[in-house]
Amino acid sequence: MNAILNHRSIRKFKSDPIDEGLLNDILNAGTRASTTGNMQVYSIIVTKSPEVKQQLMPCHFNQDMVMQAPVVLTFCADFNRFNKWCLQRNAIPGYDNFLSFFTAAIDALLVAQNVCIAAEMNGLGICYLGTTTYTAAKIIEVLKIPKGVVPVTTVVVGYPDEWPDLTDRLPLASVIHQEIYQDYSSGDIDQIYAAKEALLSTQKLLEENKKETLAQIFTDNRYTKKDNLAFSVGLLKVLAEQGFMNNEE
Amino acid sequence: MNAILNHRSIRKFKSDPIDEGLLNDILNAGTRASTTGNMQVYSIIVTKSPEVKQQLMPCHFNQDMVMQAPVVLTFCADFNRFNKWCLQRNAIPGYDNFLSFFTAAIDALLVAQNVCIAAEMNGLGICYLGTTTYTAAKIIEVLKIPKGVVPVTTVVVGYPDEWPDLTDRLPLASVIHQEIYQDYSSGDIDQIYAAKEALLSTQKLLEENKKETLAQIFTDNRYTKKDNLAFSVGLLKVLAEQGFMNNEE
Repeated sequence: MNAILNHRSIRKFKSDPIDEGLLNDILNAGTRASTTGNMQVYSIIVTKSPEVKQQLMPCHFNQDMVMQAPVVLTFCADFNRFNKWCLQRNAIPGYDNFLSFFTAAIDALLVAQNVCIAAEMNGLGICYLGTTTYTAAKIIEVLKIPKGVVPVTTVVVGYPDEWPDLTDRLPLASVIHQEIYQDYSSGDIDQIYAAKEALLSTQKLLEENKKETLAQIFTDNRYTKKDNLAFSVGLLKVLAEQGFMNNEE
Repeated sequence: MNAILNHRSIRKFKSDPIDEGLLNDILNAGTRASTTGNMQVYSIIVTKSPEVKQQLMPCHFNQDMVMQAPVVLTFCADFNRFNKWCLQRNAIPGYDNFLSFFTAAIDALLVAQNVCIAAEMNGLGICYLGTTTYTAAKIIEVLKIPKGVVPVTTVVVGYPDEWPDLTDRLPLASVIHQEIYQDYSSGDIDQIYAAKEALLSTQKLLEENKKETLAQIFTDNRYTKKDNLAFSVGLLKVLAEQGFMNNEE
């Protein structure tokens, strides 16, 4: 359990490359994850070359770790391979719809988390890049991703050159519901967020950002409605362009 | 790496309950997964009572393991808690859109996979239920799930009463792409699926189902276009009803 419990996102990496055999073992561990109907409707794009990483940089808001980490893994929901197989085997695929996209996205994300844990078990550090869904159209262009495939997350991997403190988490009981969903009272919410709001780092953030509450830093600075709407439109457009929005019966 | 490499989906469980302390440790390990901006926009509903499991049964196509496994975990994309916090803190949440749903779904799925690996590390067996996205509307009703929350996957957990063979996987190289996406030729496809098509179990399936190719068993029997379309419409309706499709700028 130690690899799981000691997870921290690593954003500074040593220049040491990852041994090919080790990388293979980690990716292989990824593919042992559960997959819907054993269809394996995912792909992993392994990018190491500085040239391609440089092109990915703006897709990930120019975060240094994309260039610094020896390996960038782009996890994709992928029905392209499966569809091609069906067509070559006298079978008519019906996977150009939203349900199929989401099924493939689940597949890809379970593989991604397996890969991350396997990497950490082997002394490597990882960081997920949430930017993938924001700039999927551009990533598709850079990585020459065909129809039937959508990048859903990216992970940078390498040997850690930092060891940050464990990140705080909400009290476990607050994200767990017994038997059925137990909705939150306003008193519950105060209690759940109290420790996070009392952190020294939170106080510092409020001062730096001249904000009254931590929640405002999320809504006004980090994850704004304006950005979310623009990214929503972009992501839905990508799903349509990649052939996953033919939902008419 | 053994827990990861030895994963098999378990569909028969002993009646032994899971110790509360152990279950807590496993769920806690789940929450150590990466989460976008440390927002933890997920919830886990822990169902043990036979009464509630009985209500969940039709949602999961009456698979015995739902009643048999001592614990059923429903993993949800959850912005309800975060939105409530924002509103109580004079912050205006902008998370009623598709991007936010998908962000929360990623969060929930990484937690789910952590929970599964932690469970397996402790001698438990798990099985994902893909039915969750097919019948999300009904699950929302049974588990009294409020707006801002969408169930994305379900996992049954318990002590294994079977130990099936490892499931076959496609050759590792066929799901990996070096640098950029390398699209598949028809020769590639033949090669990739050759071993799977040659399995004895495949031959048996073809005879049982009176089908010409394995691909047809997927397209005609297991994952049909008709079902996928109906489930797509249902899932998109759930996203709208739960407040995640306000994508207009």
